[in-house]
Amino acid sequence: MVQNNSLSTHKLPFQQLAQVPFTQVFIEDKFWSARMKALQKTTLKACLTQCEQTGRISNFAKAAGLMDGEFEGIFYNDSDVYKVLEGIAYSLMNEPDAELEAEADKVIDFIAAAQEEDGYLQTYFTLAEPDKKWTDMNKHEEYCAGHLIEAAIAYYQATGKRKLLDAAIKLADHIDALFGPNKRHWVSGHQEIELALVKLYLETKEERYWKLAYWFLEERGHGHGVGYSWDRADWGAAYSQDHLPVREMSTVTGHAVRAVYMYAGMTDVAALTGDEGYLGALDRLWDNVVNKNMYITGGIGPSKDNEGFTSDYDLPNQSAYCETCASVAMILWNHRMNLLHGDSKYADIVEREMYNGALAGVSLSGDKFFYVNPLETDGSHHRVEWYNCSCCPTQIARFIPSIGNYVYAVNERQIVINQYIAGIGSLQVGNEGVTLKQETNFPWDGTVTIRVEESGETPYDLLLRIPSWCKNFTLKVDGEAQTHPSMHNGYVKLCRAWKAGMEIELVLEMPVQKVYAHPLVIENTGKVALQRGPIVYCIEEMDNAAAYEQTIVSPHTRFQAVFEPNLLEGVVTLYAVGGSPTDTFQAIPYYTWDNRDSGKMRVWLPEAKVEAALYEIQ
Amino acid sequence: MVQNNSLSTHKLPFQQLAQVPFTQVFIEDKFWSARMKALQKTTLKACLTQCEQTGRISNFAKAAGLMDGEFEGIFYNDSDVYKVLEGIAYSLMNEPDAELEAEADKVIDFIAAAQEEDGYLQTYFTLAEPDKKWTDMNKHEEYCAGHLIEAAIAYYQATGKRKLLDAAIKLADHIDALFGPNKRHWVSGHQEIELALVKLYLETKEERYWKLAYWFLEERGHGHGVGYSWDRADWGAAYSQDHLPVREMSTVTGHAVRAVYMYAGMTDVAALTGDEGYLGALDRLWDNVVNKNMYITGGIGPSKDNEGFTSDYDLPNQSAYCETCASVAMILWNHRMNLLHGDSKYADIVEREMYNGALAGVSLSGDKFFYVNPLETDGSHHRVEWYNCSCCPTQIARFIPSIGNYVYAVNERQIVINQYIAGIGSLQVGNEGVTLKQETNFPWDGTVTIRVEESGETPYDLLLRIPSWCKNFTLKVDGEAQTHPSMHNGYVKLCRAWKAGMEIELVLEMPVQKVYAHPLVIENTGKVALQRGPIVYCIEEMDNAAAYEQTIVSPHTRFQAVFEPNLLEGVVTLYAVGGSPTDTFQAIPYYTWDNRDSGKMRVWLPEAKVEAALYEIQ
Repeated sequence: MVQNNSLSTHKLPFQQLAQVPFTQVFIEDKFWSARMKALQKTTLKACLTQCEQTGRISNFAKAAGLMDGEFEGIFYNDSDVYKVLEGIAYSLMNEPDAELEAEADKVIDFIAAAQEEDGYLQTYFTLAEPDKKWTDMNKHEEYCAGHLIEAAIAYYQATGKRKLLDAAIKLADHIDALFGPNKRHWVSGHQEIELALVKLYLETKEERYWKLAYWFLEERGHGHGVGYSWDRADWGAAYSQDHLPVREMSTVTGHAVRAVYMYAGMTDVAALTGDEGYLGALDRLWDNVVNKNMYITGGIGPSKDNEGFTSDYDLPNQSAYCETCASVAMILWNHRMNLLHGDSKYADIVEREMYNGALAGVSLSGDKFFYVNPLETDGSHHRVEWYNCSCCPTQIARFIPSIGNYVYAVNERQIVINQYIAGIGSLQVGNEGVTLKQETNFPWDGTVTIRVEESGETPYDLLLRIPSWCKNFTLKVDGEAQTHPSMHNGYVKLCRAWKAGMEIELVLEMPVQKVYAHPLVIENTGKVALQRGPIVYCIEEMDNAAAYEQTIVSPHTRFQAVFEPNLLEGVVTLYAVGGSPTDTFQAIPYYTWDNRDSGKMRVWLPEAKVEAALYEIQ
Repeated sequence: MVQNNSLSTHKLPFQQLAQVPFTQVFIEDKFWSARMKALQKTTLKACLTQCEQTGRISNFAKAAGLMDGEFEGIFYNDSDVYKVLEGIAYSLMNEPDAELEAEADKVIDFIAAAQEEDGYLQTYFTLAEPDKKWTDMNKHEEYCAGHLIEAAIAYYQATGKRKLLDAAIKLADHIDALFGPNKRHWVSGHQEIELALVKLYLETKEERYWKLAYWFLEERGHGHGVGYSWDRADWGAAYSQDHLPVREMSTVTGHAVRAVYMYAGMTDVAALTGDEGYLGALDRLWDNVVNKNMYITGGIGPSKDNEGFTSDYDLPNQSAYCETCASVAMILWNHRMNLLHGDSKYADIVEREMYNGALAGVSLSGDKFFYVNPLETDGSHHRVEWYNCSCCPTQIARFIPSIGNYVYAVNERQIVINQYIAGIGSLQVGNEGVTLKQETNFPWDGTVTIRVEESGETPYDLLLRIPSWCKNFTLKVDGEAQTHPSMHNGYVKLCRAWKAGMEIELVLEMPVQKVYAHPLVIENTGKVALQRGPIVYCIEEMDNAAAYEQTIVSPHTRFQAVFEPNLLEGVVTLYAVGGSPTDTFQAIPYYTWDNRDSGKMRVWLPEAKVEAALYEIQ
C-alpha cells in the first residue's frame, strides 16, 4: 500500500479522533468488495465514457487549445470529471488497474493543459465567457475548484503522482489571491471549496488554505451574496444558507447538498479552531436535520423545487427528492462530526447512509443511477444511465471506493472501529503501529471477528461501535465473555495490553425491527418500516404482485430473514408470514430496488393495529 | 412406556385437537429434565415427608382405624396427599423409581382403607364431624374428591395399578348418587370436581360422570350456594363464581384458582357438548383474564384478601398475590382451550406460565416453595419449606412432571407441536403411528430440530407453534428454506408425505425484548419489563447492589444475553450495558429469583425516555 500522507493520521487540535485514511485500510469484504468491483469495472468506466461522449473531457482539451470547438454542456460539468478521477484514485488503492490509471493520466493531462496561466481553471468560462470569470457567485467556479482539489489529493495519495495536485494548488493559490480579508467578497453559491481547502492544508501544511476556508464560511449571512439563487424571491438567501452568519444557524434551509457540504466544512474549521460559535451551530444543525428532517434511509431534502429542505417533519414518500449527493454529503459531514466529538451517533448516520440512501444511487450492475431517491413510487421512477446534471452518478463513483476512510479512527491511546467491514487496517496509536484484521459477513450477519495482527508494547483501548439499531450483542475477548464492558459514547471500550493474536468476537443481533416515524411525520401515520441491522427494507410490486396494494403488517406478521445468494447479487430478503394474503409478503433491501423488472415500490407499509394489548412487546 | 389410556388420544366431539397424554411423551430435555429430576429426587420426597410430619397421611390411617388419634390440620388436607400421588405418577413415567412407587403404594393402601362403605372419603369429616358430611358447600369435599380422581387416573396410567382408581370411582359413584337432577343441590365451594369427572369419563367411558360435571356447573348462579364464602358480605356470591349462571359470565371474579379450575371444567364440557353458551362465556372470560387481569409472568389474582381478582388492570407489583396454584390452573385451562379451538394463543399462555409464574413456585433445589408470587419485593418475601395450607407446593409437585401433556396435540390429519421440549413423542395421526424426536436447548436458544423417526404412508400436516413473542424465525425442511409457509392460527403448517428421516429445523430468534404494560396498569406507567424468548426477567439486589434502587433502562441500554452454566443451575442472564451506573445492571430469569442470598427484587424497571425520536425502533 502507498502511504503518502502522514498528516492525515494526526488529530486536528480540537478533534477527539484522527482520520485513518483509505490508504491505510485494505478492504476485503463480501459485501463491499462486490460493490467496489462493480464500481471499478463498470461505474468508473461508464462515467468516463459518458464524460467523453457528453463533451465533459473534451471541454478541457478545447480549453487547452488541443482541439477545436465550443464548450458543451452545463457550466459546472468540469466537476464531474474531477469526481470520477477522485473515484479512480480510491479504487486503485484496493485494486490496481493500469489501464484505468492510464486513462486517468490522459484526462489529467488535458486538465493541466486547460489551466490558465494565473491558475484559473473552469472550462466553461475559458471557452464561453472569458470576461465573466468570478462575476456570478452561482456559477460554481469555487465548487469545481473544490472538487479538483479533492480529486488531486486522492490521486496523489493513491498513485504518488503530483500533476493534478500541482494544478489544484495553483488554482487554490489563484483563489487565495482574489479572495479573503481585505480582498473581494464572495459567498460560495455551491459550497464545497471549504472542506477542500482544509484537505489541501492537511496535505500541504499551508495554513492559509484552511484560513481561506474559514473566511469563505464567515462571508455568509452579511448580504454579500449576489446571483441567480439570491434573486429568486421564493428562495431568498436561506436557499443559499446566506440568511444568517453560519455561527447563528439552528435550522437547515435551502439546497440540501450545498448545506451539508457547508456543515462539513464548518466541522473541519471547528476541529482546527475550536470556534465555539461553530461548535454550537453544528450541534443545533445536526439535531435539526437528523431528528426532524431525515428520511429513514438517511435521505435528506424532500423537495424537488429547491432540491432541499422544507419544514420540520415534512417527509413525503412519493415526492421525496433525496438526492444521492445529499446522502453522500451526510457521510462526509457525519464522519467529520465523529472525529470531532468521538461519538458513535455520527458513525450511526454514516452507516445508515452507506447501506441505504447513498448505496441506492447506483444499480447493482454499476451502470445505472438514481439522482432522486423516493421512498415510494407508482412504478414510474427508474435508474438511468446518465443525467445532464450528473453530479449524483459521479458522487457515488467517488464515494463507494472511498469507504476505507470510514472504518477506523484513532487517537493517542485509542482505536475506534466505526464500521464493520472485513479487511485490514494499518493503524498508528501514539507512536506504535497496530494492524487489525476484521472478518465479517456484515450487514447480513452481525458476527464480527477482530484479530490483532500486530501490536506494540503500550496498552491502548479498542472501542467498538454498538450501532443504535442493535439492542442485543455479545462480546468475547479470546473466547471469554465480556459481561461488564464499559460503554463510552455508544462504543464498548476494551482496555488491554493488546498483543498479536488476540481476538475479539462481537455478535450484533439482527432481528427484523419495526420502525415508527414521529407522529408529526403525517404521511407515515399508521405505517411501519422494516429494518434489519442497518438495512432498510422495501416491498417491490414484482415480488408481491398478488396483493401489493393491500400489503400490511399485522400483529400476526412474523418475519423470516433468509440469505438468498442468487437474488440481487446475494441479499437477505424478508419473508413476512402472516395469517392472510395481505400480511404475507416479501421485502428486499431498499438499496437494491429497481434492479429487476420495473414496478411499484414502498418503504412504509400500513400497519393493522389491534386494540391496546395488556402487554406490548417491542 | 406404558400406554393404558387409548381414549385420551381421541378427540372429543367439539375439539379441534386431541390430547396427547404424558404417557406418550418421553422428555429428555436439558432444561426440563433438570427440573423434573429435582422434582422427583427432592420435591416429591419433601412433600411426602411434610405430609407425614403434618399428619396428612396419618389422617388416612386414623380414618381407616389403623391408628389412633384425632384429625390433624385443615379440613381439605387430604387433597395435598392426592396431588403428591399424582405428581409421583407422572414422574414415574419418565424415570421409574421403585422406592418412590412403593411409598406411594403404601399411602394408597391407607387411602383405600380410609374410604367408607358408601364410598365417602374425606378424613376430616370421618374423624372430626361424621354427622356434618355434605352440609357445608365450602368444606371442599368434592374438591378433595376431584384431586383423588385425578391422582387415581394418573397413577393407573403410569403404573397400571387400579387400587386408587377403584377408590376414586367408588367416591364418584357416591357423589353421583347424592347429587344431580332431581337430587340435592350443590354449588361446589372450590371447583375441581368438574374437570376430574370429565377425566373419569374419558378413562371409564361412563357418560354419567361428565353429565354430573355439567350438572355441577349448571348449579351455579341460581341462589343455591350456602356456606362461609357466601355469607361474607364483602365477597358475596361472586367470590364463589355463583353470582351468575356460568354461561352468562363475562368477567373474572373471586378466588382465582377456583375460577380457573371452573373454566377448565367448562371447557371440557364445551368440548363434549358444543354448548354455545359455554363457548361464548369461555371466550369472554379468557379475553377478560388474559387481556385485563394477568401479570406478565402469567400470575393472576392480585389480591391477598380474596386470593383472587379485583378490577380490570389492577395489577400491583409488590402486593401481587399470584398463587402458584393459579398459574398452574391457567395451564390446565389454556391447554383445554387449545385443544378445543386449535389456536396457538392458548399454548402461548401455557408457555408463559410454565417458564414464569408456575415455575417460580419451587426453588431450584426443589424443597422450598412460593405460595405468593409478587413481581417486586422489599426483601421480605422468601420461599419456605411448607405451608399450613400447602396447595401450592403440592400443585407444583404434580405439575412439573406432567409437562409431557402439553408438548403435542393431534387430530385425524395433523400433528401440532405446542411446546419446544426435547424428547420423543409417540403419536397417532388417524390410524397411523408417528414418532417425532425434538432436539433443542429451549428456552435459552430458539433452535429446534424435529426429526421424523417413524411415519406411516398417509400424508399429514405438521403444525409448529410460532410463539407470540417471536417476531423472527427461519424454517427449513431437510435443509431447504421454507420461505412461504402457510400460517394457521399462529402455527406454521407444513403439509408433506412425511417419511422417517425427514428433519425440520426451526430457529426462533430470541432478542431481549422490552415489554410495556397497558396504560391503565398505572403501577407500570413509565416502566418496562424485559423478556427473552418465553423467559421474563427480574433484577435482584445481590447482582446489582451498587445502584439497585436507581436501576433504569435508558435509550442507551443494550443487552448481552449470556448463558452462564454455573449461575442458578445454568441460565441465560442479561447484562444491561448502558452509559452510566444506573443503566448498567444484571437481570436473571424471574423463575430463579430468591434462590441465593435474600434481598430485593423487581420485574418492572423505570425507563428513562428521551423526547420522541424521529424514528423509534421496536
